[in-house]
Amino acid sequence: MTEISKYGEFGLIKHLTKDIKTVQPSTKKAVGDDCAVMDFSEIKNSKQKIKNEDVRVLMTTDMLLEGIHFNLEYVPLKHLGYKAAVVNFSDIYAMNGTPTQITVSLGISKRFSVEDIEALYSGIRLACERYGVDIVGGDTCSSMTGLTISITCLGVANAKDIVYRNGAKLNDLICVSGNLGTAYMGLQLLERERLAMTQNIPNNQSVPNAPIEAFEGREYLLERQLKPEARRDMIESLRKAGVKPTAMMDISDGLSSELLHICSQSGVGCCIYEDKLPIDYQAAVLAEEMNLNIVTCALNGGEDYELLFTCSLDDYEKLIPIEDLYIVGHITKPEYGCNLIGRNGEELTLKAQGWNAFQS
Amino acid sequence: MTEISKYGEFGLIKHLTKDIKTVQPSTKKAVGDDCAVMDFSEIKNSKQKIKNEDVRVLMTTDMLLEGIHFNLEYVPLKHLGYKAAVVNFSDIYAMNGTPTQITVSLGISKRFSVEDIEALYSGIRLACERYGVDIVGGDTCSSMTGLTISITCLGVANAKDIVYRNGAKLNDLICVSGNLGTAYMGLQLLERERLAMTQNIPNNQSVPNAPIEAFEGREYLLERQLKPEARRDMIESLRKAGVKPTAMMDISDGLSSELLHICSQSGVGCCIYEDKLPIDYQAAVLAEEMNLNIVTCALNGGEDYELLFTCSLDDYEKLIPIEDLYIVGHITKPEYGCNLIGRNGEELTLKAQGWNAFQS
Repeated sequence: MTEISKYGEFGLIKHLTKDIKTVQPSTKKAVGDDCAVMDFSEIKNSKQKIKNEDVRVLMTTDMLLEGIHFNLEYVPLKHLGYKAAVVNFSDIYAMNGTPTQITVSLGISKRFSVEDIEALYSGIRLACERYGVDIVGGDTCSSMTGLTISITCLGVANAKDIVYRNGAKLNDLICVSGNLGTAYMGLQLLERERLAMTQNIPNNQSVPNAPIEAFEGREYLLERQLKPEARRDMIESLRKAGVKPTAMMDISDGLSSELLHICSQSGVGCCIYEDKLPIDYQAAVLAEEMNLNIVTCALNGGEDYELLFTCSLDDYEKLIPIEDLYIVGHITKPEYGCNLIGRNGEELTLKAQGWNAFQS
Repeated sequence: MTEISKYGEFGLIKHLTKDIKTVQPSTKKAVGDDCAVMDFSEIKNSKQKIKNEDVRVLMTTDMLLEGIHFNLEYVPLKHLGYKAAVVNFSDIYAMNGTPTQITVSLGISKRFSVEDIEALYSGIRLACERYGVDIVGGDTCSSMTGLTISITCLGVANAKDIVYRNGAKLNDLICVSGNLGTAYMGLQLLERERLAMTQNIPNNQSVPNAPIEAFEGREYLLERQLKPEARRDMIESLRKAGVKPTAMMDISDGLSSELLHICSQSGVGCCIYEDKLPIDYQAAVLAEEMNLNIVTCALNGGEDYELLFTCSLDDYEKLIPIEDLYIVGHITKPEYGCNLIGRNGEELTLKAQGWNAFQS
């Protein structure tokens, strides 16, 4: 265990970033000066070439605070770093773009060692390697309290490819890229084990990790919560199929909440079907075990980081062969509102409970 | 006093950003989607036009944490917001660029009201208005503890204009854009009054603000600490004079620390002169009063946000007429090291005490 004071602020940044290589041709200068420098004048990837005047730069940012967004009793630091980066990439894909650079700011309290921060950083770097993104800067400072992670991500897109939230049209199909509520059930599983462990231990001490056995056969739920992926593959599938969604966003606060955003910004209503919602088998079993309604979890559980998008009905034939693509409903006139049709045909109004409200 | 829960996360963002106008032609979409969208393909300002292929995008980020970077006992929230934005602009100017967009992430604990966050945001917006920068996104979340502010700034520059830290050459002149140690003395003044007030009050209660009288005639010191400006004017003066510095950075951690960065990255040594250091009269008087060495403060006191830059000796005649430009020394061979020549001719090795070490 190495104390951070051994390195100091500048030393720690140097240590963490010393062998970072950049892969994006647009990155001209990464860490080491007052700013990073990028040249977006021409984007050439294996997959696309964008002319100067068509290049658009995308920018998104996410802040994660200890005790609010994560609990280090069961979240490994490497996973946390991976997730902190990936949630930003997810926002770039949700515009139909490609993430290219991030800056990483960390607020670190004294209880963390250099090895802790290395683990966190190694997760961020792994995500960057997998998604071809460069770390180009950041800020590292001591914090009075817990861990704070703030990542800002740049990306690029061809102007004509960008998909906003406000483009959904009457009769468009509503699609999602994978099962919903699973990350939420992963969180419930971790929380249940944490509570069980805390109660079983003399003096009410908490333990760093719940036993592996409790999670056996449920690794997928944990992975969805602890190490989500951004759906680059869906963006590529849609491109290959020649489909440009009319509206898109990523699902971080639950399907209901995000669908209401798209509908309100597009000035439309929607109708989704309970029996069309993609639900993971393990998640359903655990929900049953925990007396939770899995449909409510799918609608309002957060952090799935799946893509929610609408496509023209004309693209129906092109959508069908795409793996992991689920059509869950369609866009309606605004006066119809936003509704869920239950298994027995009953109609329920969608509410934006969102992830935070759902928690409390 | 309005509780933040009245708005919720989305409501608060909407409330804070509802009437924000953008002024940069490069901003195509600001808040309201997964990402902001910028078009940097052609930059046309009143001052410059940059061809597509010459445009470079600059990126910098700064995190401010309560209890580490600021003390809300004497820092007004509006000033804090202003400063949080300006320190980012300062990094962009230090590359010889122009700031264009920021994202603002806030972690807010329950003890803050909507009015508090409005005050903070109004300071950020004021800084953006003054410097012509757009707020294009961000993240707002509740925090378990204090206030966290993370701002990321984009800027633009013509590729050929960018000044890095590593370009200082033998015999270059070392210049600064204004007096040093003043922000640090402002901090000392605020701290002294805070302690005095705390001690004088029954039950050791602290008070929200020190009395105005204690600061009379010393407003300049406070302003340098609480509401620093980024030296856009110096960048413009140098451009008008036809001077491109060989190396540049902004002084956030003290002259010594920053000069050592430039020298180590440029592979040179330096020699600066005590009697050339620009020192504010009020700062010197207060240092005397508080038994502090004002030269030490000028070398190691942080947060002045002046520009430190080196220029070719050939530009000497062009530099002389520039207001607020002080030549404090020159670049030497690396084997000479980094030295300060005292008033009596004594030579002292510069050390990177920096602002943090200086504090403790």
